[in-house]
Amino acid sequence: MLRQRVAKSSDHSNSMNTSFASLSNRRGASDAEMGLPGLDDPNAKSKPINFRSKLSRIIRYAFLPVVFLFCSLTIFVPNFRGYNPFSASSVILGAAALGIFWALLQFLIVARIPVQSGTTNEETGLVSGGSNATTARLVEIYEAIYEGAESFLRAEYSVCAFFVAVFAVVIFFLVSWGTGWDSARGFFTATSFVLGALTSMASGYLGMKVAVFSNVRTTVSAQKPGWTGCFNTAFRAGAVMGFALCGLGILMLYCTMLAFRVHYPAAQDWVYLTECLTGYGLGGSSIAMFGRVGGGIYTKAADVGADLVGKVVHGIPEDDPRNPATIADNVGDNVGDVAGMGSDLFGSFAEATCAALVIGNTIGVSGGWDAMVFPVIVSSVGIIVCIVCSFIATHIVPVRNEAGVETALKVQLISTTILMIPAVFLAADAFLPASFELAATVGDGTITLKPDEAALCVCMGAVGGLTIGLITEYYTSHSYKPVRELAHSCKTGAATNMIYGIALGYKSVIIPVIVLAGAVYGSFSLCDMYGVSLAAIGMLSNLATGLTIDVYGPVCDNAGGIAEMAELESYVRDKTDALDAAGNTTAAIGKGFAIGSAALVSLALFGAFVTRIRTSSAASGAQLFANGVNMLEPLTFAFLIVGGMIPFAFAAMTMKSVGLAAMEMVMEVQRQFDEKPHLLDANPTERPDYDACIAISTKASLREMVPPGAMVMLTPLFTGMFFGVTAVCGLLVGSLVASVQLAVSMSNSGGAWDNAKKYIEKASPDSELKGKGSDIHKAAVVGDTVGDPFKDTSGPALNIVMKLMAVLSLVFADTFYAFNQGRGIFNL
Amino acid sequence: MLRQRVAKSSDHSNSMNTSFASLSNRRGASDAEMGLPGLDDPNAKSKPINFRSKLSRIIRYAFLPVVFLFCSLTIFVPNFRGYNPFSASSVILGAAALGIFWALLQFLIVARIPVQSGTTNEETGLVSGGSNATTARLVEIYEAIYEGAESFLRAEYSVCAFFVAVFAVVIFFLVSWGTGWDSARGFFTATSFVLGALTSMASGYLGMKVAVFSNVRTTVSAQKPGWTGCFNTAFRAGAVMGFALCGLGILMLYCTMLAFRVHYPAAQDWVYLTECLTGYGLGGSSIAMFGRVGGGIYTKAADVGADLVGKVVHGIPEDDPRNPATIADNVGDNVGDVAGMGSDLFGSFAEATCAALVIGNTIGVSGGWDAMVFPVIVSSVGIIVCIVCSFIATHIVPVRNEAGVETALKVQLISTTILMIPAVFLAADAFLPASFELAATVGDGTITLKPDEAALCVCMGAVGGLTIGLITEYYTSHSYKPVRELAHSCKTGAATNMIYGIALGYKSVIIPVIVLAGAVYGSFSLCDMYGVSLAAIGMLSNLATGLTIDVYGPVCDNAGGIAEMAELESYVRDKTDALDAAGNTTAAIGKGFAIGSAALVSLALFGAFVTRIRTSSAASGAQLFANGVNMLEPLTFAFLIVGGMIPFAFAAMTMKSVGLAAMEMVMEVQRQFDEKPHLLDANPTERPDYDACIAISTKASLREMVPPGAMVMLTPLFTGMFFGVTAVCGLLVGSLVASVQLAVSMSNSGGAWDNAKKYIEKASPDSELKGKGSDIHKAAVVGDTVGDPFKDTSGPALNIVMKLMAVLSLVFADTFYAFNQGRGIFNL
Repeated sequence: MLRQRVAKSSDHSNSMNTSFASLSNRRGASDAEMGLPGLDDPNAKSKPINFRSKLSRIIRYAFLPVVFLFCSLTIFVPNFRGYNPFSASSVILGAAALGIFWALLQFLIVARIPVQSGTTNEETGLVSGGSNATTARLVEIYEAIYEGAESFLRAEYSVCAFFVAVFAVVIFFLVSWGTGWDSARGFFTATSFVLGALTSMASGYLGMKVAVFSNVRTTVSAQKPGWTGCFNTAFRAGAVMGFALCGLGILMLYCTMLAFRVHYPAAQDWVYLTECLTGYGLGGSSIAMFGRVGGGIYTKAADVGADLVGKVVHGIPEDDPRNPATIADNVGDNVGDVAGMGSDLFGSFAEATCAALVIGNTIGVSGGWDAMVFPVIVSSVGIIVCIVCSFIATHIVPVRNEAGVETALKVQLISTTILMIPAVFLAADAFLPASFELAATVGDGTITLKPDEAALCVCMGAVGGLTIGLITEYYTSHSYKPVRELAHSCKTGAATNMIYGIALGYKSVIIPVIVLAGAVYGSFSLCDMYGVSLAAIGMLSNLATGLTIDVYGPVCDNAGGIAEMAELESYVRDKTDALDAAGNTTAAIGKGFAIGSAALVSLALFGAFVTRIRTSSAASGAQLFANGVNMLEPLTFAFLIVGGMIPFAFAAMTMKSVGLAAMEMVMEVQRQFDEKPHLLDANPTERPDYDACIAISTKASLREMVPPGAMVMLTPLFTGMFFGVTAVCGLLVGSLVASVQLAVSMSNSGGAWDNAKKYIEKASPDSELKGKGSDIHKAAVVGDTVGDPFKDTSGPALNIVMKLMAVLSLVFADTFYAFNQGRGIFNL
Repeated sequence: MLRQRVAKSSDHSNSMNTSFASLSNRRGASDAEMGLPGLDDPNAKSKPINFRSKLSRIIRYAFLPVVFLFCSLTIFVPNFRGYNPFSASSVILGAAALGIFWALLQFLIVARIPVQSGTTNEETGLVSGGSNATTARLVEIYEAIYEGAESFLRAEYSVCAFFVAVFAVVIFFLVSWGTGWDSARGFFTATSFVLGALTSMASGYLGMKVAVFSNVRTTVSAQKPGWTGCFNTAFRAGAVMGFALCGLGILMLYCTMLAFRVHYPAAQDWVYLTECLTGYGLGGSSIAMFGRVGGGIYTKAADVGADLVGKVVHGIPEDDPRNPATIADNVGDNVGDVAGMGSDLFGSFAEATCAALVIGNTIGVSGGWDAMVFPVIVSSVGIIVCIVCSFIATHIVPVRNEAGVETALKVQLISTTILMIPAVFLAADAFLPASFELAATVGDGTITLKPDEAALCVCMGAVGGLTIGLITEYYTSHSYKPVRELAHSCKTGAATNMIYGIALGYKSVIIPVIVLAGAVYGSFSLCDMYGVSLAAIGMLSNLATGLTIDVYGPVCDNAGGIAEMAELESYVRDKTDALDAAGNTTAAIGKGFAIGSAALVSLALFGAFVTRIRTSSAASGAQLFANGVNMLEPLTFAFLIVGGMIPFAFAAMTMKSVGLAAMEMVMEVQRQFDEKPHLLDANPTERPDYDACIAISTKASLREMVPPGAMVMLTPLFTGMFFGVTAVCGLLVGSLVASVQLAVSMSNSGGAWDNAKKYIEKASPDSELKGKGSDIHKAAVVGDTVGDPFKDTSGPALNIVMKLMAVLSLVFADTFYAFNQGRGIFNL
């Protein structure tokens, strides 16, 4: 069945994937001719890095992108006043182009690796060419995963495209009506919404393609001796996604801004420009919602289902090719953990920038365009910083052993954060006027800001994010006490494991929340709400590195799955497992960053909402929140509690969906085992029907992603229209307060359960924890299974809940205001 | 070992318990002589109720209490101006005395039942006297439980007494200092704190005594044919606690108020009177915190430990006397579910009243004393309504079969709520002036209120509470879809059970929160913050009935445990199990009420805090919150997030404590099984060491209750002193928003897991759910075990978290204000 499908699909995927395939084949061949260190070079381990050959290759690969960069600079920039090679526009567009170029470069390096098997003699380190059969199997699995992911994303994006088309019309009408039929603003908002959505889809799609493309190559590299090759392959795969997404995001956003500036050339009209731009954030965020939830349900339905029936009932290992849900599980990693997360973080970036621009649009009047786009400059500087620091992992201190993997990834995060600090201060001094004015969120005054204050806010965010990330690591890595304690709690069974795991998650909230509160207070005091939005941008400033590490994890996970399914030798799987374990921990760090920044972003968006109500509407709008947002308004307070309920309702819906889909999966797998009794033999004579499992995951996720998405999007819309803007304030703040806690605790509980299980698996059968297969291990597997939807479906999607509700309210602020001066239809 | 201890202790407990024991013996004897229908009357089932004999008995028992009532009326009331038999004072003191009298009456009825075993022939319905050995065993178990509970409460209350003594001094100094060394206010606040704490301890102690006393009598009654006897026994046991607590609470509170009025006779000084009275709420609430947490950890450590090692590992049934943790488990029900809950609800009542009085103190100036004490009148009217409705269960529609049990309990809740509505309107019209004025919480204006508006707020609370309760029932009773679905999720193992259960809890938050938000909005719009406090009082107005039902549950649970341990015939256990199952569901309803009211109470306390800052401090205090509480203050917002974290941290600490103590318990039980290999024989020749398990629970709970308690009490104190009152506002609202959701979801998840397990146990082995002992049942037991701390430790204690933080801030409002006009030591 699989072969048949693959045969059918490979023509198809070849046509889809010509550039990828042909590139990789060509490179693979030529590099082999060039005597590339690797598969057939037993001395690779000790060979020093040849900087000159790398450099020549970089120059060779750089040609095309440099042309692109040059063109964009010459086409775009001179069309607008104040052209200057050191202007904000040059820096932003240059950095964006550099990011895209860098991603392309990384891709080409990964593409050099040919998909073919090889066997290493571990003692002599000699590599001999693998069998053709194994190579064919590798290709077959790769294509099956690719086709599964491709077809799911196509189905998902069809739903999304339909949604985008409909919602763009809704936006056009509602915004036009809200602004007194200023159809230009309606049109621009709808356009930027579509652009944001398209960019988000492109990011997700690209990420998926790169991940699938790189997974198998990571497996291949893991066959070689040494750790450098396989680590670098997975790391570069991540970098492709990270830098491409950042570059693309900034490029699209800034070009949209420049285009809108044609319509709004005067600085005092930039308030409309930034308002229309919020559609970009909304577009990014709504696709992120569907991507995260749909992908999350897909991946976890397959994962939980496969685990339940495979590991728990029949005792076959993870990713065993006899388990019909394996391919679906691996597809899920690519569509959920890669594409979903890509969209998510793109959404965060877009929203943070929009929030900062809306709050800071009055800076344009006093400080000019370059000062106003400072938030985008910070992100651009971030790309450059991340590129510089990525050399640490790939060239300066390459990974040489298992222990080096986690260090290398952590060093990336720490070094980018440290390097950001001087970079941000430099950028602030270069692009911000010595002092500039900003309208205060509360009251009628203005605040005078200095560049250093703005830079300090950015740094608070960056350092705060790192702190949250490291705390997350403490709670989810089995190198520290909490996870070890959790592992020991399995000795008394699954129930204590559950109790301890949930308690661990709840406890892990304490420090991140205090750090967040500190960042909010510090940046808020320094620069009002603008400071909070800058802190959010600061936390996302090393996004490219964060994404690199985030994508690295699922790539290694998949590489391991492919090794298992292709029945490669066990050392390959051990290596990918080690890469994956480090990835798990750093993925948790990445989630910490994502949640922290989401909290700041949604607070900033809330500030932008209040600012927009106050500035862009009639004078009575200014009146409404002149003294701030009063918690002691009946409506505000009532909706504070309602807002706090939203994340719980959302988590309930998504978890239930995973449970439901996983149960369907279990039934299907069990049915196959029942119908094909020889499927579980050591050398099975029958083959499982992978497609049926893929179909279940696909159907379930498309069906189940709609209700939670609709709830999150319709709640603020209806609240604003029916109950008015004071109700919306309560709703946003309530959901923010509850989402942060729930998101952090769910992500960390899930991560900790996963790693507690891994810790027990590493234990020897004679030790206290008894190791794999024992009752203790079974108890740990229950925790891991429960943790799957916690950490990969509900937890991270809660980020989007808070951001999406806020950005949606921001886009429709004028519309809400148009109903009885913001008092809603009911006029309460 | 047990015998030894019992022998030693029985002299002791006899001396402690003379009144109980002698009363019960005397009654038992005299009733037997009187030919009491019961144990030895096979025709009891069909005998009609003799209203006249009941009436004569009521009159007989009423003598002493009526004397007491008369005395209190003559001693207290004429000492104050405006004496009038229909004055507020007469109604309040009368109702309080009536409540206490009614409790005494119920107690005497329960006490008539002699502790002796009897056997019913189920076919003929004939009862024959049981063996002396069984009777001795019943007495022995009863005394062991009694002694365990008594010694734990004594240990717990020693800690509490120490805390109360120290904290009273702290209150005296801080409040005196905060009020510019007005030591009278410091002294009064400290005094009312001590009184509140003592009343709370007395309530808890009383509840425990009554419960232990009634458990065994419920077991005895369950031996008789028919359901009326055993249901009524357990129901009356609950009523003793319910009415005694309400009566005592109101009596103490009102007497304290009257005493303070001697010092503050002028209406414009009643603002100080009500402020000093807040200490009463704080006292009740702090003991509730220790009682709930300490008792909760005690009971669940024993329960989880006993379940883990008994049911899961060794396959022996619940409450099997061979399990050394059984006695500790049964003790736990009495100290945790009865004493802890009694203190908790007493705290809610005290705080709600204090909040309403503080917010409404300006009513005293315009409407006089009777108008000001309207909140106390509502509670008093509630006692009378509850007494009237209790006849429905015991006399008008007595329980005649299994199905009738749940109905009877539900009818109690519904009927009291319905009857409260006209009663409240009558009371409002009688005691409130036709229109009265109240200072607005926000702004400098006053609000003119009508009695009907105030009554409507009370009714909103009462009806809202009932709605929340019924929704809770829907989600936790196995008569409805959610729990049945949860039971079916066990088919794919413990992991899906966990995922579904947590999702169920989260989902169950939606409607209660919307109802709460509606009640908040409605009452807030009608009567400002005063309306919210009235709604809280309304939700607690049928507290006596709520408590009756809450205590009924653990009494039945214990009765079942005693039946099992005394090895009575299995039909006794089946009967108590059925009583308990209904109790579980109604206990969930009670928890719904408790959480809903806690949310309203803490919002009201927050309103009182703001009011107090505005009214009782210098003019600049009024300035601080003149425009309400602005969410967009940096400090307020930062502490909103911190506040949202507190309930998670608290839940983490308490759950971890239960897990830790349960693991200790498992180790101990396992040690005993290992050391005494014959313990698990069908007819064991060795006896387990119950004391060791009791010691573990006691030690663990005393040790573990301090950190969460300290966190909850010190956080607002330090926040107020260091960061000021704007930070406190954020903290209180944040913790309120997150606590409501977490408390509801944890309680409901726990209840649903418990009942899903019971539902599976009821299924036959041939059915889809396979029934007791199957893998499906094992998966359900894991859920039940995890649910134990959810529903009985962390979930309900979260109520106290939100209330305690708010009442503490209220008590120290002036003190916080004294630091730099409420800006704290750091002067941020």
